[in-house]
Amino acid sequence: MTTELKIAYIGGGSREWARKLMFDLALEPALGGSVKLFDINFDAAKLNEQLGNWLQDQDGVVSRWKYEAVQTLEESLRGADFVVVSIQPGTLDIMAQEIALAEEYGMFFPVGDTSGAPGLVRGLRAATIYKNFAHAIAEHCPNAWVINYTNPMTICTRTLTRVEPKLKVFGCCHEVFKSQELFAELASEHLQTTAPIPRADVAINVQGINHFTWIDRATYNGMDLFPLLTAHIQKPGVLREYTQAEVENFGTWFHSTDQVKFHLFQRYGILAAAGDRHLVEFLPGFTRSPEELFKWGIIRTPVSWRKARWTNAPQQTRDLLAGKEKLSLGASGEEGIAQIKALVGLGERVTNVNMENQGQISNLPLHAVVETNARFSQDDVRPLNAGALAPGLYPLITRHVSNQELIVEAALTCDKDMAFHAVYNDPTNRLPIDESWEMFNRMLQASCEFLPGWN
Amino acid sequence: MTTELKIAYIGGGSREWARKLMFDLALEPALGGSVKLFDINFDAAKLNEQLGNWLQDQDGVVSRWKYEAVQTLEESLRGADFVVVSIQPGTLDIMAQEIALAEEYGMFFPVGDTSGAPGLVRGLRAATIYKNFAHAIAEHCPNAWVINYTNPMTICTRTLTRVEPKLKVFGCCHEVFKSQELFAELASEHLQTTAPIPRADVAINVQGINHFTWIDRATYNGMDLFPLLTAHIQKPGVLREYTQAEVENFGTWFHSTDQVKFHLFQRYGILAAAGDRHLVEFLPGFTRSPEELFKWGIIRTPVSWRKARWTNAPQQTRDLLAGKEKLSLGASGEEGIAQIKALVGLGERVTNVNMENQGQISNLPLHAVVETNARFSQDDVRPLNAGALAPGLYPLITRHVSNQELIVEAALTCDKDMAFHAVYNDPTNRLPIDESWEMFNRMLQASCEFLPGWN
Amino acid sequence: MTTELKIAYIGGGSREWARKLMFDLALEPALGGSVKLFDINFDAAKLNEQLGNWLQDQDGVVSRWKYEAVQTLEESLRGADFVVVSIQPGTLDIMAQEIALAEEYGMFFPVGDTSGAPGLVRGLRAATIYKNFAHAIAEHCPNAWVINYTNPMTICTRTLTRVEPKLKVFGCCHEVFKSQELFAELASEHLQTTAPIPRADVAINVQGINHFTWIDRATYNGMDLFPLLTAHIQKPGVLREYTQAEVENFGTWFHSTDQVKFHLFQRYGILAAAGDRHLVEFLPGFTRSPEELFKWGIIRTPVSWRKARWTNAPQQTRDLLAGKEKLSLGASGEEGIAQIKALVGLGERVTNVNMENQGQISNLPLHAVVETNARFSQDDVRPLNAGALAPGLYPLITRHVSNQELIVEAALTCDKDMAFHAVYNDPTNRLPIDESWEMFNRMLQASCEFLPGWN
Amino acid sequence: MTTELKIAYIGGGSREWARKLMFDLALEPALGGSVKLFDINFDAAKLNEQLGNWLQDQDGVVSRWKYEAVQTLEESLRGADFVVVSIQPGTLDIMAQEIALAEEYGMFFPVGDTSGAPGLVRGLRAATIYKNFAHAIAEHCPNAWVINYTNPMTICTRTLTRVEPKLKVFGCCHEVFKSQELFAELASEHLQTTAPIPRADVAINVQGINHFTWIDRATYNGMDLFPLLTAHIQKPGVLREYTQAEVENFGTWFHSTDQVKFHLFQRYGILAAAGDRHLVEFLPGFTRSPEELFKWGIIRTPVSWRKARWTNAPQQTRDLLAGKEKLSLGASGEEGIAQIKALVGLGERVTNVNMENQGQISNLPLHAVVETNARFSQDDVRPLNAGALAPGLYPLITRHVSNQELIVEAALTCDKDMAFHAVYNDPTNRLPIDESWEMFNRMLQASCEFLPGWN
Repeated sequence: MTTELKIAYIGGGSREWARKLMFDLALEPALGGSVKLFDINFDAAKLNEQLGNWLQDQDGVVSRWKYEAVQTLEESLRGADFVVVSIQPGTLDIMAQEIALAEEYGMFFPVGDTSGAPGLVRGLRAATIYKNFAHAIAEHCPNAWVINYTNPMTICTRTLTRVEPKLKVFGCCHEVFKSQELFAELASEHLQTTAPIPRADVAINVQGINHFTWIDRATYNGMDLFPLLTAHIQKPGVLREYTQAEVENFGTWFHSTDQVKFHLFQRYGILAAAGDRHLVEFLPGFTRSPEELFKWGIIRTPVSWRKARWTNAPQQTRDLLAGKEKLSLGASGEEGIAQIKALVGLGERVTNVNMENQGQISNLPLHAVVETNARFSQDDVRPLNAGALAPGLYPLITRHVSNQELIVEAALTCDKDMAFHAVYNDPTNRLPIDESWEMFNRMLQASCEFLPGWN
Repeated sequence: MTTELKIAYIGGGSREWARKLMFDLALEPALGGSVKLFDINFDAAKLNEQLGNWLQDQDGVVSRWKYEAVQTLEESLRGADFVVVSIQPGTLDIMAQEIALAEEYGMFFPVGDTSGAPGLVRGLRAATIYKNFAHAIAEHCPNAWVINYTNPMTICTRTLTRVEPKLKVFGCCHEVFKSQELFAELASEHLQTTAPIPRADVAINVQGINHFTWIDRATYNGMDLFPLLTAHIQKPGVLREYTQAEVENFGTWFHSTDQVKFHLFQRYGILAAAGDRHLVEFLPGFTRSPEELFKWGIIRTPVSWRKARWTNAPQQTRDLLAGKEKLSLGASGEEGIAQIKALVGLGERVTNVNMENQGQISNLPLHAVVETNARFSQDDVRPLNAGALAPGLYPLITRHVSNQELIVEAALTCDKDMAFHAVYNDPTNRLPIDESWEMFNRMLQASCEFLPGWN
Repeated sequence: MTTELKIAYIGGGSREWARKLMFDLALEPALGGSVKLFDINFDAAKLNEQLGNWLQDQDGVVSRWKYEAVQTLEESLRGADFVVVSIQPGTLDIMAQEIALAEEYGMFFPVGDTSGAPGLVRGLRAATIYKNFAHAIAEHCPNAWVINYTNPMTICTRTLTRVEPKLKVFGCCHEVFKSQELFAELASEHLQTTAPIPRADVAINVQGINHFTWIDRATYNGMDLFPLLTAHIQKPGVLREYTQAEVENFGTWFHSTDQVKFHLFQRYGILAAAGDRHLVEFLPGFTRSPEELFKWGIIRTPVSWRKARWTNAPQQTRDLLAGKEKLSLGASGEEGIAQIKALVGLGERVTNVNMENQGQISNLPLHAVVETNARFSQDDVRPLNAGALAPGLYPLITRHVSNQELIVEAALTCDKDMAFHAVYNDPTNRLPIDESWEMFNRMLQASCEFLPGWN
Repeated sequence: MTTELKIAYIGGGSREWARKLMFDLALEPALGGSVKLFDINFDAAKLNEQLGNWLQDQDGVVSRWKYEAVQTLEESLRGADFVVVSIQPGTLDIMAQEIALAEEYGMFFPVGDTSGAPGLVRGLRAATIYKNFAHAIAEHCPNAWVINYTNPMTICTRTLTRVEPKLKVFGCCHEVFKSQELFAELASEHLQTTAPIPRADVAINVQGINHFTWIDRATYNGMDLFPLLTAHIQKPGVLREYTQAEVENFGTWFHSTDQVKFHLFQRYGILAAAGDRHLVEFLPGFTRSPEELFKWGIIRTPVSWRKARWTNAPQQTRDLLAGKEKLSLGASGEEGIAQIKALVGLGERVTNVNMENQGQISNLPLHAVVETNARFSQDDVRPLNAGALAPGLYPLITRHVSNQELIVEAALTCDKDMAFHAVYNDPTNRLPIDESWEMFNRMLQASCEFLPGWN
């Protein structure tokens, strides 16, 4: 028996997330239905429509979905059961400009999409765009579940419920999985299991905010995994410095040596879940120079690479459609489909999500978006209590919570000073108020087409 | 494979709960081990030891447990994995006296074990006793899970963590099941299912405090059951008054006509989960006379009946052991064993428990004991966010939360005025301050042997 | 040098408060200006205009004010520096009806204007009326200070800022003065002073809500006065019961024997500030019968007396104007003029007021209206921290805070169930839910002309 | 009539504050009594004893005080009405070392006594010492008022009540006065007054924490002074950069050009009250280099100068006693004596103090020490509500509040990681975690003799 669904995909021209979703849907026999793709780049959506529909006839596909690119947001939303949002808030050119501006002022961001001046200004653009999404969803499909994939995750997700408090929203991010995998490896090694332990078998408690989530409890079959981690870090050679050459030879922009994670663990006794390239953007000192980053084994993801990927993706798609490239149909490793299944009543599931705080972290403000575990069941996503943040961790996290709330509020009211308060307060900021203000204004200037109503 | 456990049973001479536990353990193949029974009445514990060990050889028993009555609390606790507590805080004579005293002052309690002057004074006794339990558990088995069954549930549970904040404590109560059953019946009727829908298939959200827990969401396979309830109440004859004769012919002391529950639902739009005999003890007006109670279909459980049951139970046990009575080995319907299984890693489970508020009800004070759903997994009981109490419900519940906190504090500090503040503030109280004080003093007098340190 | 002010008087036809204000203004040389009198009874306002202007030429008058009755609310408000509000929310007939209804259901209210079912339903009417005042003030004189005298004080004051958060509002009540006088007398007696000690020389800390305010600290020249109070209560004959005859011979409706106050002090160690006739309306038990009230020395103020006063007042005014009655120009004992002086920069002043909680009582909700001391200085009324409510006192007060918030919210949204939640939760309520609902509906019926939008 | 007082002076060998107190006492006719001077340097206390007693016979002295150096803390405290604390927490050598260490790591602190790594480590020493003071005061003079002058003000004051919650403690600091003077000058200029307006005539509202206090309201005779400030900043030449040469020629270490203050005001709309040399220690960016500081007109107070003052002060005192130097008996401008007078019942007074938050700043945690106005009256210091911190200001201040709480807790529990959490989280910190940890350990090493129990 198949559950029939209507999915609206905002950002449906997406090069990466759309394909992941299509493949995951193709491999899930329990669900079927239609996906309406909306994108400000209609051609991109149209190409994804082609890809999606072409996929239906490929080997290994076990479900039936109809894809359709639509011209308006409203059209995609009308009657939707689920709304998936994965957009680029602004352009990659703007992203490149703001990362370059930050570097000009002595701050070097490996990612630049969540925290620090570039992440916060990106947040202004995102909140401005998401305000409209919120109104449209409330009007056209108020009972739909909205799943956000866009960064800055917290700001996007928070804007939706700040603007329309009754929307059912959560945000998904896979950053935590890596730390689960680490624990799984340590457990496997310790227990000398023949097969690798799957990450999902490691039970963790998660608390914090997206990309700055912390794990204060990890067990495997009742075994506390923290002592294994402590022992691991103490092994010779685990803590070390890297050279630029080493780092540049990683061959991927996304590798994490976990040096930052491990140093934090030594001081805080709690494990930061995300990769190091994200972590350094939430903390003082690391982003002060490319050399400092290399030392920790971190390389900055070049926006030029993102742009190339962006440019090449359509051709890859066309090659696939034309049979020039072979289809490799595999699961994405994302949990979106599993979550959708749970929400339509096909099994329950506990996993980490980004949602408004309704008490799951008792010493963070209500309504701020936090990341904790939640239990998915039929039409219900209910956070599990993650406990209060430890005293030493609390101020590390709250300042970002405050900044994110300021950005959402500033975006909704076009309050430039308020947005600046967040930028100046960010822990990566190394500038006195005058230079900070100057940099911020130059960033705003670069973003001006996406900030209507701002002067 | 069997998981071997050591269970300490405080109140191990219990007539009712001990037998339920023994039977449930007997029927569970995955667990085995030893149960140490401690009771201030050693003979009663000894009799349960006999019963428990005799049980091992009976038909239908699928596990292996060794029961042993021990002379001291310490002996029972040493090395325990689980501590079950189910005691009578004081004597049934005292209970009879305080219910009679309340009646003398015009307040008629059907149960008298949780709220109102009798429940609160019982709470003083219980907290005084539980303070010692807390210290002993912290000393002898600090990592054990403590499962409380004694009433007043909230006060008992709260005392343990108020005195020893690191103890792992939860309290179990089945009152909520009845409302789940009601929903299951309505769903079954509506869907015209051939077989009855099991109560566990009705998903509910639970919020409040023990015996005054509320359900604000109930679904079956994604179907909202609240409209069925609304329709049910409007059917002719559902809302009605009862006569004394009718009520006296119910043939059980525990029947609930749900008249109170339904009237509350009409005004609050949320369903009180417990039976009417409990509900009226948390609310103004109902307990003003036996006639009023009859009108709502409520009969007071006579303490004389409890005493008779108390007196007869040992003989029944002896009859069973002597083969004079036939063993009827059935599951109790309680969830204790299922919870223990989840805690030792044998499956996960979501059910309602009484635990310290760590944010699961965001507008009740942290640390007060509340009742919500929680997820049981290996060595973890993690509350699910139950949401904030609705504005109209909030004051109904908070005044009891305040009173229970006052009673615990008063018991720990022997502060008579503070205990009185709770009694005077109870919504069932109909007396001005002088008579209320007089009644309270007479109740204290009746309890004096259980309140050492009070004058 | 005289400060020239424009005062708007809403309820300017008032029989009692308007005259007090006029006399107090007449005796204050530092202020002058105009008073615009608005009343739904224009004739009453007109009569006060005559009285006010006639007063300017009388002996002993040391200031210059121009009184003018106006036809519209807007006219009175335009350009006002101060807005004084003192109205009858509904009619005395309705008040009589709801007090009679409460009595029919077994609840006997000596005043009936603040708490209990009559006070809460009066609050519904008041909030409905005050919503319009709030909007009008925000439009016509947003910077004016608004001084409220109407009961229910908390609900009226709260409605203004709930509807228009930027209004500058406080409420004045003299109930606290009586307790200051009591302390002054005890101090005078103890120190054997020749002259009486003025009440204002007794420094008190005040915390709670209007008519249910508590004093937890009273000093005179650094001497703690609480031991004097304790000793006073222990004197033979101070605590006693009264007979109906005694009470009926008091010769005033406003006498307080302080029996309730003293009994509360014995149990709570904190002094309830208001007179007994108010106190019993916030507590269980006292209002259960006229006999119970007599026992405590309390007589119910008959609404018939209020109506007679209402009817006779205009004639008294006309007699005064016609020279038939002699003018007795004395200060009212109210503090309104002194507060106005402080607000225009003529000296500073610390006194008790009703204002939104901005932290002055740290364990009551922010924004609820509470009564504490505040410091009046130029264009500023700044609450002094009154401390947290003691644990035993906390639940006595919070349930009223919750109820008052429910009434305001219910009035603004025409939510009948929500209003009922407050009525049912009131500690004076002795009825089960069905009778409580019936009584409430009959009261609403009596008020229907003042509750537009309610069915 | 003179009020006779016993004052204990902890740090009674103080070179600066002791003399200020003596002079102020000498000039106050309403008070007299004894001052017991305790200091770990007994000779220094002895010299102050001589000075104090010598002073009694000098011209212009209008009171009678007896000074006595005592050998033990206990002796100074026994029976005291007031305890004044003004100590050096550690030595100036340590202070010099930790400021030099910070500079080695690229952070340049003009003062180094409150915030940033040097201020926080100083806080560890101070809290360790103050813990003992708290116990001794609670034992020997539990009802005394304790007035703290030592920096870090917040940590010292907080430690006292964290350790002994019943102590009556407040901390005094004059930093706010400068901003009042600024407003007074602007008002005087605007109104073209012939005489300067005294700073005390400017009414301000104060909110924040010591040395990072903010003024959100300033009026003079009802005139809002903020527009004058806005206009002032816009005048040509007010905002400007400074050269090193200019700054080095100020001729004082304490001059504030207010450039930082004014830039903050432009962005936050609220005025930071302290001098720029303090402000930059609470904010990112300014302390990155000596050049940056010069640009803002800030020079670092050299610890060598403090040491010279320290060394020379006793000789100055001896010169004074020997008649070699002329006594110049003037009021210090501090408010300590005025506060003492108010506390003994000689007038009331509203001024800024550092006290535990009991709600005066509603969005900061209860019990943290904050700086707001308070009303001093007989035996009472009662904070005035200062309002919630504005959203943009909130995160700037809370991170320091968190850090200060961590330092107090770390000092009381010898928790090195927890102390580090504060250091790493400080906004002046520019280091990644490894260097930050290294610097912190070197600072701890320098302080080791003042941190018993730490390894």
